[in-house]
Formats: sequence, structure tokens, C-alpha cells
Amino acid sequence: MCGIFGVTNNSDASRLCYLGLFALQHRGQESAGIVSLNEGALQVEKGRGLVSEVFSEKNFSALQGKQAIGHVRYSTAGGALDANIQPLYARVAGETIALAHNGNIVNADSLRQTLEQSGAIFQGTADTEILLHLLARSRKNQFVDRLVDALIPLEGAVTLVVLTKTEMHAYVDPCGYRPLVIGKLRGEGEEFSWIFASETSALDLVGADFVRDVNPGELVSVDLVSQRLRSTALPMQSHQSNTGEESRCVFEHIYFARPDSTLWGQNASLVRQELGQELARCHPAPADLVIAIPDSGTPLAMGYSQASGIPFATGLIRNHYVGRTFIEPTQTVRNFRVRLKLNPVKEIVRGKRLVVVDDSIVRGTTSRKIIELLREAGAAQVHMRIGSPPVKFPCFYGIDTPKRKELIAQKMSLVEMCDALHADSLGFLPQEALVRVVEKHGFNGTRNQGKKGFCMSCFDGTYQDSGAQILGNPEGVPT
Amino acid sequence: MCGIFGVTNNSDASRLCYLGLFALQHRGQESAGIVSLNEGALQVEKGRGLVSEVFSEKNFSALQGKQAIGHVRYSTAGGALDANIQPLYARVAGETIALAHNGNIVNADSLRQTLEQSGAIFQGTADTEILLHLLARSRKNQFVDRLVDALIPLEGAVTLVVLTKTEMHAYVDPCGYRPLVIGKLRGEGEEFSWIFASETSALDLVGADFVRDVNPGELVSVDLVSQRLRSTALPMQSHQSNTGEESRCVFEHIYFARPDSTLWGQNASLVRQELGQELARCHPAPADLVIAIPDSGTPLAMGYSQASGIPFATGLIRNHYVGRTFIEPTQTVRNFRVRLKLNPVKEIVRGKRLVVVDDSIVRGTTSRKIIELLREAGAAQVHMRIGSPPVKFPCFYGIDTPKRKELIAQKMSLVEMCDALHADSLGFLPQEALVRVVEKHGFNGTRNQGKKGFCMSCFDGTYQDSGAQILGNPEGVPT
Amino acid sequence: MCGIFGVTNNSDASRLCYLGLFALQHRGQESAGIVSLNEGALQVEKGRGLVSEVFSEKNFSALQGKQAIGHVRYSTAGGALDANIQPLYARVAGETIALAHNGNIVNADSLRQTLEQSGAIFQGTADTEILLHLLARSRKNQFVDRLVDALIPLEGAVTLVVLTKTEMHAYVDPCGYRPLVIGKLRGEGEEFSWIFASETSALDLVGADFVRDVNPGELVSVDLVSQRLRSTALPMQSHQSNTGEESRCVFEHIYFARPDSTLWGQNASLVRQELGQELARCHPAPADLVIAIPDSGTPLAMGYSQASGIPFATGLIRNHYVGRTFIEPTQTVRNFRVRLKLNPVKEIVRGKRLVVVDDSIVRGTTSRKIIELLREAGAAQVHMRIGSPPVKFPCFYGIDTPKRKELIAQKMSLVEMCDALHADSLGFLPQEALVRVVEKHGFNGTRNQGKKGFCMSCFDGTYQDSGAQILGNPEGVPT
Amino acid sequence: MCGIFGVTNNSDASRLCYLGLFALQHRGQESAGIVSLNEGALQVEKGRGLVSEVFSEKNFSALQGKQAIGHVRYSTAGGALDANIQPLYARVAGETIALAHNGNIVNADSLRQTLEQSGAIFQGTADTEILLHLLARSRKNQFVDRLVDALIPLEGAVTLVVLTKTEMHAYVDPCGYRPLVIGKLRGEGEEFSWIFASETSALDLVGADFVRDVNPGELVSVDLVSQRLRSTALPMQSHQSNTGEESRCVFEHIYFARPDSTLWGQNASLVRQELGQELARCHPAPADLVIAIPDSGTPLAMGYSQASGIPFATGLIRNHYVGRTFIEPTQTVRNFRVRLKLNPVKEIVRGKRLVVVDDSIVRGTTSRKIIELLREAGAAQVHMRIGSPPVKFPCFYGIDTPKRKELIAQKMSLVEMCDALHADSLGFLPQEALVRVVEKHGFNGTRNQGKKGFCMSCFDGTYQDSGAQILGNPEGVPT
Repeated sequence: MCGIFGVTNNSDASRLCYLGLFALQHRGQESAGIVSLNEGALQVEKGRGLVSEVFSEKNFSALQGKQAIGHVRYSTAGGALDANIQPLYARVAGETIALAHNGNIVNADSLRQTLEQSGAIFQGTADTEILLHLLARSRKNQFVDRLVDALIPLEGAVTLVVLTKTEMHAYVDPCGYRPLVIGKLRGEGEEFSWIFASETSALDLVGADFVRDVNPGELVSVDLVSQRLRSTALPMQSHQSNTGEESRCVFEHIYFARPDSTLWGQNASLVRQELGQELARCHPAPADLVIAIPDSGTPLAMGYSQASGIPFATGLIRNHYVGRTFIEPTQTVRNFRVRLKLNPVKEIVRGKRLVVVDDSIVRGTTSRKIIELLREAGAAQVHMRIGSPPVKFPCFYGIDTPKRKELIAQKMSLVEMCDALHADSLGFLPQEALVRVVEKHGFNGTRNQGKKGFCMSCFDGTYQDSGAQILGNPEGVPT
Repeated sequence: MCGIFGVTNNSDASRLCYLGLFALQHRGQESAGIVSLNEGALQVEKGRGLVSEVFSEKNFSALQGKQAIGHVRYSTAGGALDANIQPLYARVAGETIALAHNGNIVNADSLRQTLEQSGAIFQGTADTEILLHLLARSRKNQFVDRLVDALIPLEGAVTLVVLTKTEMHAYVDPCGYRPLVIGKLRGEGEEFSWIFASETSALDLVGADFVRDVNPGELVSVDLVSQRLRSTALPMQSHQSNTGEESRCVFEHIYFARPDSTLWGQNASLVRQELGQELARCHPAPADLVIAIPDSGTPLAMGYSQASGIPFATGLIRNHYVGRTFIEPTQTVRNFRVRLKLNPVKEIVRGKRLVVVDDSIVRGTTSRKIIELLREAGAAQVHMRIGSPPVKFPCFYGIDTPKRKELIAQKMSLVEMCDALHADSLGFLPQEALVRVVEKHGFNGTRNQGKKGFCMSCFDGTYQDSGAQILGNPEGVPT
Repeated sequence: MCGIFGVTNNSDASRLCYLGLFALQHRGQESAGIVSLNEGALQVEKGRGLVSEVFSEKNFSALQGKQAIGHVRYSTAGGALDANIQPLYARVAGETIALAHNGNIVNADSLRQTLEQSGAIFQGTADTEILLHLLARSRKNQFVDRLVDALIPLEGAVTLVVLTKTEMHAYVDPCGYRPLVIGKLRGEGEEFSWIFASETSALDLVGADFVRDVNPGELVSVDLVSQRLRSTALPMQSHQSNTGEESRCVFEHIYFARPDSTLWGQNASLVRQELGQELARCHPAPADLVIAIPDSGTPLAMGYSQASGIPFATGLIRNHYVGRTFIEPTQTVRNFRVRLKLNPVKEIVRGKRLVVVDDSIVRGTTSRKIIELLREAGAAQVHMRIGSPPVKFPCFYGIDTPKRKELIAQKMSLVEMCDALHADSLGFLPQEALVRVVEKHGFNGTRNQGKKGFCMSCFDGTYQDSGAQILGNPEGVPT
Repeated sequence: MCGIFGVTNNSDASRLCYLGLFALQHRGQESAGIVSLNEGALQVEKGRGLVSEVFSEKNFSALQGKQAIGHVRYSTAGGALDANIQPLYARVAGETIALAHNGNIVNADSLRQTLEQSGAIFQGTADTEILLHLLARSRKNQFVDRLVDALIPLEGAVTLVVLTKTEMHAYVDPCGYRPLVIGKLRGEGEEFSWIFASETSALDLVGADFVRDVNPGELVSVDLVSQRLRSTALPMQSHQSNTGEESRCVFEHIYFARPDSTLWGQNASLVRQELGQELARCHPAPADLVIAIPDSGTPLAMGYSQASGIPFATGLIRNHYVGRTFIEPTQTVRNFRVRLKLNPVKEIVRGKRLVVVDDSIVRGTTSRKIIELLREAGAAQVHMRIGSPPVKFPCFYGIDTPKRKELIAQKMSLVEMCDALHADSLGFLPQEALVRVVEKHGFNGTRNQGKKGFCMSCFDGTYQDSGAQILGNPEGVPT
């Protein structure tokens, strides 16, 4: 999970990039970076931390020029290395280029090994560096052709914005794991800028209009002089990642995307509300109040309330001041970490039978603590309802899930889980119901006939590509 | 508006203080400070910024000891001076004491003048320093008597926690403008700590039980050796601030306090919901959806929805990453500052007749911009509903309101305001309805017979004390 | 030991103040502060650290105005408190003033006690606050008269620059412990600025001309409108600190002042060279080379070389990058702390009989380690020569000397010291020789007939005032 | 100019590395970095600024392990890029290695072009990256063989320390431009560590013994298990940089190295003193005093004084607090930048005929300002004497000299220069005299028969290799 952004032909390019990244901050808080193109040279500013921490006014005097791309990075294991902070930039075949990547290349290990054998050196641990080496090894003359050459061998989630001296490119892999939208920002007279962004909420903040999604398997290129936008379809037959299916990450809808973003033609907030309604139909509960685990559970809980007729209430208050580091008391305050973020409203929950709605359960530890807090605050019953199916398999497409054996749903039956969480009842949204909702309106408004549209591998273990199949099954035993 | 916190008899005192201040962060983001008492000496750490920015692990090695008090400070005009960051500490009559104050002394100017004439020097601009000088000038021997002497001449909002070498004191002025609660944190065996905090949510975070409010005009003192808690009623007949009325700040309920806090016996969240219900009854609207201006408008909007039967929806999404400084685009992005915080969900508001609920309108500029954003996002109609009466008069009791002439409700009639905001209709909660809700359950559970309970001076200009009357009427013309 | 600076009538006032403090940085590295007077209001910026660390460009936008004073503070025990960072500023009798003090008030304890009994409160631990309270208590109308009232009761070293809305004052106590010079900076046409500075090297950096010293017991006042400079002699008969003797700190010449400063009419560098020559005459040594402990021993060593004819060489190299904190190896590197600063040049010292010249010996630990390093580097003999008499008594006039019992010369005879330092011989400059050199040219060029000119209390224990006598003799036994 | 350091087999490795870099700080203040080898993995900490600014205690918990190398970097044009901060580290042929380089590869452009054509990507602008690519392209199996392969094509100054999982390597190019010494640090019992350092002063600080220089064209390798040290002579016939001549940078002796360092068998301080003596013989002057431009001119001036019999005095005082950024006065203070660093001692220079000794003149601007300051301070005559020949040609071996046309000696005759500097006379040390002194004792104690030992290209334009010849003569016209 990361956020990417690009803007062309705007004298405010790096500042707009900053705003775009700010709007995408929920997609990555570990590091942020912007590269601008000024008089043929790339200028780079990046660092660890939030967008507002990394950038101050002085950075923008070093980010001149009318074209810029940016990146916010999610915290992952290999993350500490400064060499991994994106956008990456490098001289490739005599030209300096910059590149911002959201996703995960699942056949990275074998590609890296092959490249190293042919003399490639790697300065960081991010899989994005593989792409730079593939670019450098293409024999094509045109950059766009080199880029196609480099993209074809990649399996997994690859959503990119690339900046060269003459063009900006945006790409989504054939499975379409991660969203990437095209926007247009009108300037004076006939002037306009193209915007590429992970989510539409970034278009909103900079005042740009949504044009369309970048399609799965599509490479969109903007000529930085003419501003002409050109679409290249990748040769699917040779593409390593082509499975014949599209495979959008369903968790973008359930959890990741901002509720005000429109994902593949549907508003995330409305989808979540409908998922909550489905959840109410599938798993009713004898309760007095529906409450959410904020913020992600809120639209789900509202939907549950609407469909069930049980009133919604704000039973848990979230503290938004929580920062990165925190001083802990040396003496035990029970459930301290959860309390820092969430506090029950005693007067609301006391004596009530509660439906508590959350988006998902991964390890189960936080859910158990929240239920404990609610019971201490006087809740009579706690009926846990989850807006997605049980997560039983790790994700290899950019989401930082724990290993398979740490997933509570992998280890326990529904009854055991309910017991472990100390819930009075527990219900997950069935996968069919989830599919029904997210595929209801098709993608981009039109139904993709006969095509599977979403990746559900974390629920059912069905990975699209051989790379993920190998990662998901290290012991060689069928999952 | 500030937050104060105190804890006795706990080897984790300064860390608990840090947590308490963290839970009270919404009451002040400008500066934070903690003073602990270690082996008879006060230790101080304070600075500008959020609690999580001011304190790191190393500060706590300089904050030893089992007693501590803390303060978070709201941004006000005189705020830039480091000498104003609280807790204040000083040597008074041979003893060093520390003091955290929430409120505003309305007769500060005349007191300061008198003190200066008798040789007092002032190192900062905070009115709290006056109290130190009055303490130093008392001829009494016992500290508690000196404190009473010093408190009697003060008019206005004075909520205090004071730490000396032998006692911790907590005080609320006779009008009771600001809340202050007593909590008890159980330790091992018979051990326990007293907690004083501006709001109950701070008790929740440290795991303490709510005991009771500090009453208006009450001075509560804890002997740091015996842990005995003693209550002293101030001599009301001589108290400068004694008006015979209690005068709790009604905006604590409407806006300031955290929704999970219990204020004077009532939960803020439930009060807000009821205010929303009253608002719906007083000002119905022909609409499809009720939306809130988050976060403070949310419980009001839910109440409105409940009473009106119009469905509630999350039509505006708030970005919680907004920090102190922000890079602006040099080119105009319309309504940029509002967009940074709030983004409409187009798919929800498009084509809808909206009831938009907010807690109050001060200058009206932000409301106008939000209505504009909603119309751009496709809203068919915008019916603005406000959970409080029009704010026509400045507050002198600790809230940073603009001058009278900048208050939109002072300058315009209801019709003019509706027009200026570009709303289809505009309705404020009538003052009688507000009084009805907040005084419904009495204070602390029991009705204070025949006594007015809340300050409504910002609505009706009726200030309790001569100091505020002078401030509120500088030209000598009746308000 | 501190450095103070003031400048009038200059649109660059705070920047010149910054430069002045930078030139005085050797007098105090703990904290730095500047107060400027802008349109009748004092503006303050201060912090812990070096001048270059405390101030950046942004501070100067908050330090407008044409008058400014500044202060650099030496590290002393009570130093950690932010409330002690100078200049101090306070509202006194309705007017805000700022004050920078270099020195030490030796009767601070009794004054503080008296003031507290009459209701004064103290916010820091610096003795300078006493002066603010005395100012506030004067019944005089004119500020200059109040200032005289406040200065009279003070014993000890009091060198001041004071800024009010209408005047800048500079003062040196009747003993004249610390230097303070007046300079004039020419501007366009008839325009000029007055400068006050602890040392002439600060005048040099800002390009000002030296005018004269502020004399012992003199209060110099500049009218900020007319720029007229007025001198007030304090009423000596009533002055608490008037001993009939002048008492300049001789260590300013030996060690503190920059070598390029002119102190009381004599250049520090030349005085040190002459002290070295005297030292050679009093304590010759059978040696091949004279080396210095840099930087303060260098002019002394050069003088020794000139008078003795033994060649001077740079046998120890000082590393100037040493900062405040330092990572130490966990395993022992012998004499690590000394090595960080000083490294012998083996090729120079190997096989040589060395005269090693330093300015003084306090505890003796560093000297012993340096001798050890030199012997390891191959020195055949080490003859230690010290450019001042043995330090046997603590200083109460602003120098941070250790307690009496830690002074090696208090505990040991000359023979014992030589032994303890592992030196081949040891010689201190006799007090008569020191007096001869420093009083040779009189002060300010003219001999003060029959008056003792320098304080030698650290050598002979003869303190000028009762305050220091009490401090120096806590057990009531004659020293 | 940079400083490099390596240490093996020491549980304090990274801390010793820190100390070593601290002792080499004068060789580079722009950035600092350390890489340690911990349980087979490289750990990296680096950043912009001084060693003491980049590293704090917390960095060392991320620098575990018994082997470490470090680097301090000189400020150069391409320096701003974080990707250039050394040590560089990269995965090469399946193994992660780290590398610290001091020097400059003069055929970098052509090598980079060739590498890019074969698919290499470059992430920074430092020429050191070329070496990583050459390593990756070698077909040899053993790392040491790959390293030899990679070093052979490099022209120019290449002094390296390389850390792999199993070995530490140290290398000096066949010309031997930059110094690199081997030290041994004894531990408990039979334990010891090998140290590699740019200068012997770094050995002194960590308490290690000097063993010998790494010789020109020698690759020294330490097996990290056995601690066995192995020397490999590079195949000279195929080495690109082999000119048959050795070519040590003479400016290491004149200016760069610390005075306490022993360079190629001779102490820098003594060499400088002898250069000063030669200078006095070649260019006597009718003067009263010899003064130095500190710190680098000091040993030269002392030598001048010794040979001429004219007394040496400290006529200019250097302020060592000068940091990176500085607040300038907005109004003009004449020669402000020079004054910040240097202040004349008026009482010493007034009325005197001065010999002023400096190490070199590059642009001449600073020299002119210093002469101006001295004349303002009252100097009667200023005879400028320079301890090296006129610098007429740029350096391509790691020193940041300006372009040819900015060198004053390139543009002007001796008479013109003297006039431009406002000096009474001007004398440079003749090249023959310089050669005589620096080659006097041979290198490492033994005379290298018939071999030229030092690079004098900045004086005579005779570059050793074709790469520098091309750079030095861009227009194709003979220099």
C-alpha cells in the first residue's frame, strides 16, 4: 500500500504534488518524496515521516519545474533503508528518470537473481529497483518501448508513475490490483494539466476533474510538450502477469481507500454502507444499538443499522492525536494501546446489547481488547459483525498482512474465534455477498462481461500468478 | 480553553500526567508542560507544540517523583511568549510552587496595575501570574489560607491545580465556568492516587474511577503524605466573583469537551444528540439527507436525523492529518483551506436536498465555503441547521472568540445571514431549547434548586461580573 | 562568566547583536538571547546552545527595531532552567524592561530572603532576578534613579546592559570585576550607533570604534531619541560594594578574554606574552623545546620561549570540532577525553626535554593526563610551567571554580603537586610578577594612584566584600 | 578530499569508526556515514553534516558488529544528493558490500557511458558508483579477483576501503595520490584489530599503533575470521592508471593533512616548518614581525621566522565557532566574511612591517581582504609569502579547485598579483624548493630511486593520465 501522484504542465507542480500526497497520506505514513523536472534536470526531495513533516517551504525552492511526481510509502519490514524511499531516480541509458511505484512484484526474487547474474547491482531492498534494471537492459530505442519491455516480465501488483525529460507515464498491471485515476486540472485559457493519482480524493483537493481510470494492462503516456495523452495496451499474450482475469484488491473498497474516493466507478463510502446492509441481512443480531469501531467500521455500521432498524450510536470515540512514538506508563494500564486510540462512551453503551461492526479481523488481538473495554464500560452483550469474510491467507500484492499462522481465521473455527474474542456472537460477511456488492455496478460503470473483477486471495487463497502461488505455499504443500 | 491534570502518590506520576494531557489535547495544542515533585524539589519540562511533540522519553528522567501536575494550552494572542507556558512555577515566600490554570481572570488589568504599584514584576503576559503575586502578598501562615486570600479577589473563570511540597490543591471558581473532576486510581493493596482532570476522558485513559466534580467555589486539598482529601468552601460573601449564580460554560457541552466526557453529570455526546433532536423539532427542513460538519457536528446531526426521520449520511470526510504548517499552492485552488480539512462525497450529496448540521457559527466564512463545496459537489439544496443560538457577544472566560464586530450574528439578521451563507434556509437552536436540554438532569445528577446553571453570555451578553461587563462594553454604551 | 552586548539606533540592531554575541561566544556557550525594542514593545528570542544554534534567519523577523541587547551564558550549576536564560525581561512598574547581566551577586541569598518576606516571587534561580525586584520596589520616579536605588545594595560582580523603551543603560560595579567597553559605529552621514560590549573583539567584528571603558562604579545611559550619552557616578559612600579598592578579575587577562581583546587598556595577547617572559625568568628550565597547551597557553609559551631562548614548537594539536555531546568507546581508550581535544606531534616531542606551558592548574587531572600523553609520545622530560599563581580559593565573582577542597593547590605542596602530575619540575608564576605585569601600564592608560587594581582572591583568599567573605568561609574559621 | 576509516575484529567497531572519522573531520564536513557488519548483514547510518551532528547514541544500536568502515565527505558541487553520501552499499552478485572512497576517477565520464550502454543504472552522481558496476560485471569467482578487475580500468585518485561479509580490503591507486595507513589496535591477550585510516592522527585517537602505509598500487585484504592480512600487487602493465610514476598529492603536506599526521614517512608539521624555512631563504623580507594566516599558515610562518630571525607573533586571531550558516547584517560591514573568522591584534601589528605567511593563493580574494584588515589595524607594510608555488591549473584528483580562469596565478603575472592583493611584496615558494623538501626523506623512510614522488599538476599542468589531460584541456589546445 502506497500512494502515488503525478502532475504535468503546471508552474505549481511540486506544490500540487505535495497536496496530492497529503490527500493520499492514509495510504502510507512511513516516508514521502517528490521529484520535479526543471530545465531537463530532475530535482529530488524526500525523507521519512508524514508529508507535512518531510516538506517545508524551503524544499520547494529545490523542486522547481512544471512536471512532478510523488510517493507516500507504507511501513513495511524492509522500510528503514533510505535507499528505498520513493520516488526512485536513476540514470538509465544516459537519461535520468524517476519512478513512483505502488504495489508488490511477486516474482522479485527470481528476477533479482537473474539480473544480478548479469551484473546488476542493487542499492536498496525495494522491488521497484528491478524495474530500473529491466529498463536499462531493454534494447529498444524509444523509452516507451523500453518501458513495455521492462513491465512484461513483472508479476503482481504494479501501479506506476514515471517521469522522464520528455514524458510522464502511468501504468496499471493487467490484473489491476491497485487503483490509478486520470484527472484534468484546468488553468488559464486553454491551459490544463494532467493529473495521475491513486485515488480521486487527491483530484478533489487540487481541484481537478476526474477523467477516467487507467485500465488494467494500460500504459498512458503524456508528451510534456504537446500535453497529448496516448494510451498503449501492453501485449497481453506475452505479459507474465496476464491471467485472463482482472483482480482488483477488494480491500481497497473494504478498508484502504478514503471514504470520499470513487474506486473503479463506485464510491467507497456507499459500497461500505451496502456491505453493512448485506451483513445485517446475513447476520442479524438481537441488539439495542449498532456501534462502529471507528473510523473504518463507521459506514459499515451505518449500513447495518439501516438494514436492521437497530439504532446507530457513537459508542467508541477515537483520539486522532496519536502520533508515531508514545510514552508508556511503566505500571500497567490495562489495554493501554487500545485505550490510547479508542474510548467507550459509558453512558451510551451501559446496559446495552451491542452490535459492534468492524471491517476485518486479522490477528484478533485488538478486537478482543475492544470487546473487553466495552464490557468494562457496562455493555450487556457484544455481537461482533465483520464487513468482510475471514482473512485466512497472506496478501502478496502490497498489503502488510502477517504470516499465515498468525491469522486468527486460519487457526480457528468460527466458534473458537467467537470464544477467543469473548464475543456473544460473531458473524463475517460471506464472500458471495461481498462479490455481489462490489461487482454490482461493474467497473467504471460498465460491466466487464464474464470477467472476474476482484482479487479475493486473502479469503480463498486463490492467487492469480505463479509468483504468489510459490510465496503462498513455501512448503510445496497445496494450500 | 486549556486542559489541566494532576496526580498524587504514584511512582509513574509524570507519565500518567503525560497521558492525561494527551487525553485533553483537544483543549489546547499550543504548548504543554509537566511539573513533578521529586524529593522536595520541583522539576519542570515544557515546550511549544503537541504533547507528543514536547515530550520524549528523555524528559521523564527529568520528571521524577510521585506527584505531578500538567497543562495543555490553547492558542491565544499573547501565546508566543515562552514565559507563558504553563504550569508556572515560582518561589513564593521561600517555597517553590507550581500552578496550572484553565480560564481567564477578567479583572486582570486592574489587579495587575495595583500589584505593579506595590512593586510586583511580571515576566510574562499570562494572567495566571497575578495569582502568584497575590499568594506572595498574603500575610497568612498556612499555604491553604494564603491560597484562599489570593483567590478571593479574582473575577472570571479560574480552574486550578496547584502543587506545593506538601499538598496538591484543586479549585473551581464560584461560577464554575470550567469543569474539573476528581478521580481515584487504585494501585497495589491499599495504595491509591488522587487524580484531578479537566474532563473524565482523561480519567478513562489512565484507568481511574470518576469520584465527583470539584464544585463551584470549592478548594480541594490533598495532603501528599496521608493522601487525605480535604474540602474548603471559599468565603462566598467576600469573593469578588460571587454573583449568587452558577455559570457553567454551555459551549463545553456544545463543542469543547470530548464526546466521551461526562460534564457536570451528563455525557457530552448524549447532550449533543438531544440538542440535535430539539433542533429538528424547532427547525424542520424538507430534505433527503442529514449530514454533519465533522467532527463536532456529528452527534448533533445524528440527533436531528433521529427526530426528523431524515436519514443521516457521511457527506463530508475530514482529513485528520492536517498539521500546524501547510504549504499552499501559489496558484489559486478555490476554498483551499476548507478543502484541506473537508471533502464532500459527491456520490452521496449529488442531487440531494441536504440538512447540514454544525455546532455554531462565529464569523460565517467557513460555513459559506462548505456550502459552496457542497453545491459544487451537486447538492440540490442546503438547509443549514446550527446546534446553538447565534453567537452575538465575545467570551471573556477563556474562549478565543473574535471581537464583537466580526461576529456575523452581531452584524446581520437571520435572513441576511442565510443569504450571506448562500444557504436555502438557516435555523439556530433557540436559547430556551438549549437551556432545557443542558439543565434537564441538573448538575452532578441533582437539580440545583432555583439556581441558573449555565453561562449564556455569548448569546445574550449577560456577563456575571463587573470585570466582563467592562470588557464587553468598552465604549460605556449599553450592549 | 558571560558576554553582554548592546546596540542603539541601528536598523540592523538585532543582527549586529547576534554578531557581537558571536564574537563573545568564548564567554558563554550554554545559552544565548537577544531582546530588541520595536515600536515600544520588547521582542525576545532565546534558547540553549551556541549563538549559531539558537538563532536562524526566522528569529530576526521577530527581532525588529533599532535597539537591541544580547547575552551569552556560561554553563553553571543552576543553568538548566529556561527561566534563567538572559536577557531577562519583565514588566516593572508598568513598563517592560530587559536586562543582560555578567557577574555574580555575592549577597544574593540575604537579598532574596528579604525580598521574599515582602512578597516578591522568584521564577528562576539566577541572581539577576533580585535586581528586577529591587527596581520594582524603588519609590523614585525616573527609571535611572530607580536603577541606582536597585544597584546600591548589590555586592559582587555586576556588569549590566539594560534596555527600556526610552534608554539603554550600561553599568559596572565599583570594583570593576568584569570589563565593559563603549564603542561607536558610524553610519550614513551624521548617523551613528552606541555599542556596549564585554570585549573589544566584539566591536571589531561589527566594525565599531573603541571609545572607552565603562569605569568602575559608573552608570552610562543613552537616550534612544537623541543618542546623547550621559554618565552617572553611583553614590559610593552608600554603595554596598564600595571597598575603596578596584578589583578587576586578573583571570580575564590570563585566560578568559580573547587574545585580540584590549582589556582595561592592555592587549590580552601581549599581557600573556609578558607573563610568559616573567615565567621564564622566575622558573627557567633545562629544556630543548617550549610547547604550549593550546589555545590559551600559546601566547604564554611564546613569551617563555622569547625570554629563555628555548625554541617554541607546536607539540600538541588541538581538534576544534569537539562538540557538546560525544560518543565514547565502550572499551577503554586511555586518556580518551584529553585525546579528543589534544594530540601530541610525536616527531616533534620525541626524545626532547620539554617546557610545557599552561595558563593555570585547577584540579590537576587534565594536566596529569597531558603529561602522560607527552611521555607516551616520547618526551624525555616534562617541565610544567604555569602562567599564574596556584589557585587555592574559589571565585565568587562569576567564574565556575570547583569547591576549595577540589583545588589541587589547596591540598598539596608544590613538591606534592609536581609528583602528582608526574612532571619533572613544576613552576608557577609568583603573584608579585603577575601584579607587576598586569598593573604595569595602569588601567586605560593612566595609573590609578595608590589603588589596588586587580582581584587576586583566588590566589590569596582576600575577598573584597562581606558577602564573599561569608561564602568563602562557611565554617566561620579564618581562611 | 575525503576521509576514510576501517576497523576489524572489535566489539566497539562502529564507535571506533566514529572516533576515526572525528579525527579525520578536517578532510570532509559535508556528510558522514558508517557501515557495520553484523551477523552477516550490513548496517548503515549516514547523513549530512559533521560527524558529531550525524551520529548520536541511538545510531550505534543500529551499528552492531565487530567490523565497520566509515567516510567523511568534502563539500563538492554534486554533493547535495543523499544518494552520494558514502559509504555506498549495494548488492553485487548476490552479496551486499559497502565501500568508502577518497579521490576522483578522472575517466569517469567515458566509463559511465560504456556501462550505461550495457544496461547499468546510476542512482547518484558520485563516480564511486562506477566501481560497483565494474565489480558486478567481472566474471571472476573470488571477490578479490573481481575487485582487481574493477580497479584496473580506473584512472585518477582511488583510495578505498571495502567491506564484504568475509573480508575488509584497502587499496591505493598506482600513483598513490591520497594517503592510507595501516594500524594495529591491541586488545586483550592475543586479540587485535586492523585499522585503515586516511591519516595517522586517526590511529592516535583510537590508541592504535602505526604499522605502515598502503603502497601505491597495493590491495591489502584482511580475512575477517583469521585476521590474516594479505597484500596483492595489481597487475601494473594492464592498469589504466599506471604511468610509471608515483604521484602523491603535495597539497596533503602543504595544507590538507592534520599537522600531527605523519604522511608518507614525514610529519606534516615538520615539513611545513621546513617549507617556511625554504621560503625565508628564497624570499627574504625587510620586516619586524612574521605572522601567519591561521591555522594552516602557522607552521610555515614559524619556519620563516626561524630561518629569517624575524620574530613570530600571533597577529591574527581565528574564531573557531564559525558554523555552516550565518546571519549576515543587512547593512554592509566591510570584509564581513573574513572578519567572522579572523581578527587582527591591533596592538601587535600597529606600525609594524609584517611578513604574512599563507599556504597558498587560489582566487586571491581572501588574501586581499586580510591584507586590507591588517592595514586598517595599522600595519606599516605587508610582505606576503606563500608556502607553495602559484596554483595555475585545476586539480582533478579530489580537490575542489575553481576553474582555470578563476585562478589568480593563471590570469596574472607576479607583479600584477602583488598589485591586486595590495601587498608590498609577494613571494611564492619555488617548485624546486618544494620538491627538495617533500622528497628529502623519501617516502616511508626509503628513497624510491629514480621515481618522481609527488603530483605537482596544479602548479605545472603535467597531469599523469589521459583522463585528466582531457579534462584539463577541453578546447583541445595545449595547456
